[in-house]
Amino acid sequence: MSTRTVLVIGAGKSTSQLVNYLLDKSQKENLKIIVGDISLENAQKLVNKHPNGNAISLDVFNEQQRTQAIDNATIVISMLPARFHIEVARDCVKLGKSMVTASYISKEMQALDKEVKEKGLVFMNEIGLDPGIDHMSAMQVLDRIRDNGGKMLLFESFTGGLVAPESDTNLWNYKFTWNPRNVVLAGQGGAAEFIQEGTYKYIPYQRLFRRTEFLEVEGYGRFEGYANRNSLKYRSVYGLDDIPTLYRGTLRRVGFSKAWHIFVMMGMTDDSYNLQETETMSYRDFVNLFLPYSPTDSVELKLRHHVKIDQDDLLWDKLLELDIFNPYKKLGLTNATPAQCLQRILEDKWTLAPNDKDMIVMYHKFGYEINGQRKQIDATMVNIGEDQIETAMARTVGLPVAMATLRILNGEITTPGVQLPISKEVYEPILKELEDYGITFKEYDVPYLSYNPHSTGG
Amino acid sequence: MSTRTVLVIGAGKSTSQLVNYLLDKSQKENLKIIVGDISLENAQKLVNKHPNGNAISLDVFNEQQRTQAIDNATIVISMLPARFHIEVARDCVKLGKSMVTASYISKEMQALDKEVKEKGLVFMNEIGLDPGIDHMSAMQVLDRIRDNGGKMLLFESFTGGLVAPESDTNLWNYKFTWNPRNVVLAGQGGAAEFIQEGTYKYIPYQRLFRRTEFLEVEGYGRFEGYANRNSLKYRSVYGLDDIPTLYRGTLRRVGFSKAWHIFVMMGMTDDSYNLQETETMSYRDFVNLFLPYSPTDSVELKLRHHVKIDQDDLLWDKLLELDIFNPYKKLGLTNATPAQCLQRILEDKWTLAPNDKDMIVMYHKFGYEINGQRKQIDATMVNIGEDQIETAMARTVGLPVAMATLRILNGEITTPGVQLPISKEVYEPILKELEDYGITFKEYDVPYLSYNPHSTGG
Repeated sequence: MSTRTVLVIGAGKSTSQLVNYLLDKSQKENLKIIVGDISLENAQKLVNKHPNGNAISLDVFNEQQRTQAIDNATIVISMLPARFHIEVARDCVKLGKSMVTASYISKEMQALDKEVKEKGLVFMNEIGLDPGIDHMSAMQVLDRIRDNGGKMLLFESFTGGLVAPESDTNLWNYKFTWNPRNVVLAGQGGAAEFIQEGTYKYIPYQRLFRRTEFLEVEGYGRFEGYANRNSLKYRSVYGLDDIPTLYRGTLRRVGFSKAWHIFVMMGMTDDSYNLQETETMSYRDFVNLFLPYSPTDSVELKLRHHVKIDQDDLLWDKLLELDIFNPYKKLGLTNATPAQCLQRILEDKWTLAPNDKDMIVMYHKFGYEINGQRKQIDATMVNIGEDQIETAMARTVGLPVAMATLRILNGEITTPGVQLPISKEVYEPILKELEDYGITFKEYDVPYLSYNPHSTGG
Repeated sequence: MSTRTVLVIGAGKSTSQLVNYLLDKSQKENLKIIVGDISLENAQKLVNKHPNGNAISLDVFNEQQRTQAIDNATIVISMLPARFHIEVARDCVKLGKSMVTASYISKEMQALDKEVKEKGLVFMNEIGLDPGIDHMSAMQVLDRIRDNGGKMLLFESFTGGLVAPESDTNLWNYKFTWNPRNVVLAGQGGAAEFIQEGTYKYIPYQRLFRRTEFLEVEGYGRFEGYANRNSLKYRSVYGLDDIPTLYRGTLRRVGFSKAWHIFVMMGMTDDSYNLQETETMSYRDFVNLFLPYSPTDSVELKLRHHVKIDQDDLLWDKLLELDIFNPYKKLGLTNATPAQCLQRILEDKWTLAPNDKDMIVMYHKFGYEINGQRKQIDATMVNIGEDQIETAMARTVGLPVAMATLRILNGEITTPGVQLPISKEVYEPILKELEDYGITFKEYDVPYLSYNPHSTGG
């Protein structure tokens, strides 16, 4: 077997375990791993002088550099921010290389499908955590139910990137384990859309964090889920066109959303305009921007009154913990948006400490009818990181990407085109191998979650 | 005096009294009025066979038609939707014609300023009601206070297009007297920004209709105002760069905003996405889209619970009056946005009856310091329409446009460039003449509205 060269573009947070996995297999599988990043230093850190690895400086917008690196590769993994994949993808088509990403398939990427198929290449996307493990673990159970003759009635799926119980030290039960900006902006850009018992439902951003549902995970207690924008996106892809209930959500610990709703109501998560004088603005002054003027009343009482927080409501302590009423702490940001200011304040308290661990939680509900009976399977996955490098997030995003890459190289995943991991050929072996890395789902037979007891007669 | 030709482009609602004014003066002033509209019929209606008028068919996107009509004119009035002015404006520059509009100065329009000045032309904009009469009436008082040595401390300005008391027959005390779509979308597109006692304040859309203030107008009772998006837009234009309090708002009758807030919270004013199956959807089903699913609970109770409307809250009757829970009335719109559906429902109840009259209300507050004393002038204007053609809106928008046009023709308004009506040369004669048409302001000396009693010592 001749040496196969894997080009990994982008040496960000989520790439470390992906590269480790490939380097660990490199001897046996005859792999050479080239890690290319705009920062040579970052790429070198990941390769860590491994004999089968090589770090290169790679600017994805330098066409010559990019084309040459791709031309030298057998297969390409792009771990760049999603909007940059298309540059790489176009070269891969041209140069006849298969490609793997953990990102949602963009319109531009989808448009390459015909050419990719014609050249017999595999462009596997959405094979990280969410999207990725959610697709695979859901399709595995959906296919099994349907193969047994079941008819799907309900599918709900929730994922959360959270902090591990042993590192859960604040009142929000939350720390930034991923891009803080995405957390602050979560849910913006359109109403959440889903379908429940055959009825379309829409939740506008201003109600999103008040329309949560609770979920229990064995051994980990209670979580809450709020709706994702795009619950109906995979209806056809999953073969669920006629399903009466379809809902996708994001998990937080109980109480997070109700407190976060305060920021939404106040307008502090708005990223659409810039404030004045945020360089020298105190946290307290920032809060006061969004409250009526008063020469005498305190910012605290104005906030309590404005968003109706009772004297004995514990969510008040969540706000105090963030020190948002501090008149001395300065934002230190130039003409920032409200969202950027809020992020700055949250980073004081929600940044992982050196020994903190993160936690991924995934929860699927599958309601179905078989032989005239209504049943439900709940499936849960919890994964806890080792440290701040080997995070659960980097592991669950990076490992499926690496595993898919190796299987494409080895001719085990062969269906050509712009793909996502919903066929047995892909999800069966990868979910199996993920178990070796502690990424496992527990399944529970539970009573069917009936939103409509009358129509079910029970 | 040779005949002067006035070209009026656009024969919409607000153009009728403008054209009447010019036709009435045509004999004495030696005017010929050409009304051009894409609908010849609409143009003919306005001209009404007047010997000094002429109706033409004019498509503003037909370059030849447009250029020729402008070339034949002495001066051009554009009453088109604001985004179409620029086509006319570029021709006017090229062909050396002055121009008048009632719209906000766009960036593209402003960019013509240098050329317009070089050619010695007057492009008078923002000379309708709001913008227009608001600028003129505010500047008149501001200039007077400052000419007398006063220092401005506060300027607040409110305008509302409402229904006249004798036609005020519903619980919302509101009917559509202008473009309903603009009413449904009011306040969207960014936080409202203003300054109060030297402190910047921001109100996000989701709180806009809960941060109102009350205003009394002698003989007309109480109104409420909510903040406009752009309160700071005219700070420099009005010479108020250092003013501690500057606020612009929209007027409604008391209670409107609190009830409207329900629609905002529910997501019914969202215009950013399209719903499914709105053709056959009932009003009741539309409301239910935004409420949690329940097989048993009524849409009524779910709404009450979701947005916390008490059993004895009168705003409930406002909702019932709109018949929003009717399961039989269908929307009849194809894949409409929530905002379009809401507009459809409101049009049932808020459309003016044949004999209904509209009402314009404007309210300015001027706080200032003079000789060590703090004082305040409040100025109010109320104008009531005659019928559905001669509305207060058409009168207050159209007459200032017509008056400015005649004064430019007669060399009384001469300052060249892209202008708005803030100089004495413009506002003094026009405000004076508007009085002949019943558009008058009442001024009241009132105690200074102190938001900050401690710093004022009182």
